[in-house]
Amino acid sequence: MSLLLRVEQALSHHFDQAVGIGAPPRLVAAMRHAVFSGGARIRPQLCMAVAAACGDDAPELTHAAAVSLELMHCASLVHDDMPAFDNADTRRGHPSVHKAFSEPLALLAGDGLIVMAYRVMLQAGAQHPKRLLALMDNLTQGVGLPHGIVAGQAWECETSADLGQYQRAKTGALFVSATCAGALSCGHAPEPWASLGAYLGEAYQVADDIRDVIADAASLGKPVGQDALHARPSSAQALGLEGAIAHFDHLVEQAASSVPACSHRDMLRQLVQHEAERLVPKALCEGYFKDHASAIPARVRTPH
Amino acid sequence: MSLLLRVEQALSHHFDQAVGIGAPPRLVAAMRHAVFSGGARIRPQLCMAVAAACGDDAPELTHAAAVSLELMHCASLVHDDMPAFDNADTRRGHPSVHKAFSEPLALLAGDGLIVMAYRVMLQAGAQHPKRLLALMDNLTQGVGLPHGIVAGQAWECETSADLGQYQRAKTGALFVSATCAGALSCGHAPEPWASLGAYLGEAYQVADDIRDVIADAASLGKPVGQDALHARPSSAQALGLEGAIAHFDHLVEQAASSVPACSHRDMLRQLVQHEAERLVPKALCEGYFKDHASAIPARVRTPH
Repeated sequence: MSLLLRVEQALSHHFDQAVGIGAPPRLVAAMRHAVFSGGARIRPQLCMAVAAACGDDAPELTHAAAVSLELMHCASLVHDDMPAFDNADTRRGHPSVHKAFSEPLALLAGDGLIVMAYRVMLQAGAQHPKRLLALMDNLTQGVGLPHGIVAGQAWECETSADLGQYQRAKTGALFVSATCAGALSCGHAPEPWASLGAYLGEAYQVADDIRDVIADAASLGKPVGQDALHARPSSAQALGLEGAIAHFDHLVEQAASSVPACSHRDMLRQLVQHEAERLVPKALCEGYFKDHASAIPARVRTPH
Repeated sequence: MSLLLRVEQALSHHFDQAVGIGAPPRLVAAMRHAVFSGGARIRPQLCMAVAAACGDDAPELTHAAAVSLELMHCASLVHDDMPAFDNADTRRGHPSVHKAFSEPLALLAGDGLIVMAYRVMLQAGAQHPKRLLALMDNLTQGVGLPHGIVAGQAWECETSADLGQYQRAKTGALFVSATCAGALSCGHAPEPWASLGAYLGEAYQVADDIRDVIADAASLGKPVGQDALHARPSSAQALGLEGAIAHFDHLVEQAASSVPACSHRDMLRQLVQHEAERLVPKALCEGYFKDHASAIPARVRTPH
């Protein structure tokens, strides 16, 4: 079974189990819309891939950990799309939750998903209390203060923010949680897997900045040009578009090299390369430069 | 030391510990404003009072559980005050978080407080992993789906909602979590303490409905007349003001009678009675009826 299929099945199973019986139906529908409207599921896939490399001796725990990461990610998207932040009408090519339901339900759906992430963990882990506590701590670090994605988002509200710190928290933190969760769900030490998450997470944030400049809204599934509009810190602004693409390539390379020696090293490196091309397709970059300048810059692949 | 003082000290200690170092300062300030701008601290006091009745053999766990309940409560207030819901400019006599900081920071402060509630638990409970997991499960039930306070708030977004179900979830759920947490932090069974939380929680919601009608904004510390304005389910609407007051008195009596036989029974009953008078002061009711009708109705104290 492909990783993606395992993720989708686990999400569907754990979502239904965690919703329980008797919840307000529109809230459940809003949360379902937030979770099951597409999405690359890269965080849960990373978690499962690392778990496979670590022996995956408690797959029910791996599944719950993977699902909880995706629920946190979806919660952050729902709140980020709201009028107080991006005011985005679309997400993954569908109406955003506040557009499809209402602002109150989007606010509550995000809250409900955060709590559901913990519920999924608590429902899965009775057999491994120590691993479970380590996984919940790891998840909490990826989301909360001082360096999780909520803190990352909040750096946008400060008068000054270090771009690296902002990106590491806004996106990197939950990627680090994802790779570490894969190890923790097998009772392994998470440290050897932290770099993979950190590099990939930073690459994702840079990719997001790049696509915000070069993609069109239809292919991106959400509005473009948001960083400039909201005066947000952005690699494309800070490094220029060419610099940002070079930085992205470098991060992807570092991510691939960071995979520790293990039986699944090739599979993990392939996953990284596949994601890199999905995130910043070479054809898209070349097309953009063709339209916007006479010279098509070579993609820089050396460290800088 | 009084319960309230213990709560304030625990809140201050665990908040600082959970914030950590390096978080965005305005986010931290917004979260601090949400937690340290007054508040009766009834949920954490209930937790500590029940723990005392159960022997309180792990006070560091009791403190963390009490703090996590209050953080969840504060998170819900921050999000409820936002323009998408009550659009309340004031809370506890101070500007609400979105007024004092901004809507984005209020949204993130609420998210951050939910996650911080779990972090406080995870930082406290290494010595008692089983109790810790039971406490986190109990907290999650009080907040999440299907019957926690997030679900309760979401019943306002449904076209039809049962008033009892709405009140039990919107307020009662976290009160039940509070009394149960007191028992769980000592390794005791929570069931004997659930009724106390349920009756008190319902009484609080009814008191809120009553005060929304009879209080003035200055003494309440937030806008009044909100239920009618937002067409929310309300006991005062459903039962009339007199009926709501009688219902409140009955619930308080049931709460006091539900306290199981224990060494701290009198203290717990006093806490209930003290809260009842604080919530719906007799003088306030009498003053209201004097101003609004010729007859001052007797407070009904028999079951109905």
